[in-house]
Amino acid sequence: MFEAGIKMATIYHQFVGTPVNLRTVEELEKTISDTIEVQPYVESAKVYICRNYFSDEGDTYSYVSLTGDMIDGTVVIRLGSTRVTAEMRYDDDLRYPLMFVSSIEEL
Amino acid sequence: MFEAGIKMATIYHQFVGTPVNLRTVEELEKTISDTIEVQPYVESAKVYICRNYFSDEGDTYSYVSLTGDMIDGTVVIRLGSTRVTAEMRYDDDLRYPLMFVSSIEEL
Amino acid sequence: MFEAGIKMATIYHQFVGTPVNLRTVEELEKTISDTIEVQPYVESAKVYICRNYFSDEGDTYSYVSLTGDMIDGTVVIRLGSTRVTAEMRYDDDLRYPLMFVSSIEEL
Amino acid sequence: MFEAGIKMATIYHQFVGTPVNLRTVEELEKTISDTIEVQPYVESAKVYICRNYFSDEGDTYSYVSLTGDMIDGTVVIRLGSTRVTAEMRYDDDLRYPLMFVSSIEEL
Repeated sequence: MFEAGIKMATIYHQFVGTPVNLRTVEELEKTISDTIEVQPYVESAKVYICRNYFSDEGDTYSYVSLTGDMIDGTVVIRLGSTRVTAEMRYDDDLRYPLMFVSSIEEL
Repeated sequence: MFEAGIKMATIYHQFVGTPVNLRTVEELEKTISDTIEVQPYVESAKVYICRNYFSDEGDTYSYVSLTGDMIDGTVVIRLGSTRVTAEMRYDDDLRYPLMFVSSIEEL
Repeated sequence: MFEAGIKMATIYHQFVGTPVNLRTVEELEKTISDTIEVQPYVESAKVYICRNYFSDEGDTYSYVSLTGDMIDGTVVIRLGSTRVTAEMRYDDDLRYPLMFVSSIEEL
Repeated sequence: MFEAGIKMATIYHQFVGTPVNLRTVEELEKTISDTIEVQPYVESAKVYICRNYFSDEGDTYSYVSLTGDMIDGTVVIRLGSTRVTAEMRYDDDLRYPLMFVSSIEEL
């Protein structure tokens, strides 16, 4: 779980602020996922950036800075015989990008 | 432990790259610690930045960018009746800034 | 002007995402300003973080992550006999945190 | 030139600290370049990450955190009839990742 928390916050604090638009968003998702997967004990990482935040007006300033609210992420950690799945998801009620452990399996 | 991991990685990925010199290092340590303490479930956070990396030559370029190797950190998390202490410390043998859980107490 | 641009983007891309609340905001402003001032050719740097974004509810999640919209910044660069003042300010019409050069003086 | 400086520092302060290894380095280079290109006034951006810093041992901790020393970058800005080329390159003598304007053209 400790490792899962590390990976969650890496997604957030390394990449929030990154300029991104509709043309680059898919590539950025993949880079963030792969970045998490190079770290120790990560079985898989999947990051989705919500497209609702993008305009498609196409003017000079038509990009956004990545915020935590835009990120949905799932990271699976395997350490010994334990597999932990953690997720990051924007909570509309709390208005907060929650990070939580969604499953712990003993293999 | 999940929360402890989040806080550890926040220290690292938010602040690595920050320009710092001998005049500002103490203030930066305090700001990082206080930044961690505003997050949920943190009882205390303590960050120390190793001074060995600084030169005191005083020329135009006499500052360094904060790296993970320079950071010693301890974060204490309290969630319900559990208190978790996590630490970040550069491991000379592994040549890696290790993050680890150093104690778990049931209160 | 090149140096001024570097400093503007340092404020933004280093610190966006930092957790902050009403208790730590003043300290964070000072740390960002002082961080910019350790870099070459900076005569002064002043950063203001808009308080409107903070709630004062005081519950567990009552902090915000610093965004570019919240930052007002002014950096004065001196290189040889030229002094350049650059500013960062959220533009309500463009809905964009604009960075611009506000004055160039020959001393 | 102001815009060129902004882009240079975006490369540095947004991405320094990112975990990367030999498998992901090419993708990260492309993502950084494309990230810069979504920003206003950028004609092209090219980022190269020096492979000398990677080990190929392949153990659990075999990745590095991106540092400014590892980055070679070139950004071309076009604003009106002016084209500015800026570069970032590690200077071995100064032991400093220098950012500089390498050409200004009137078109």
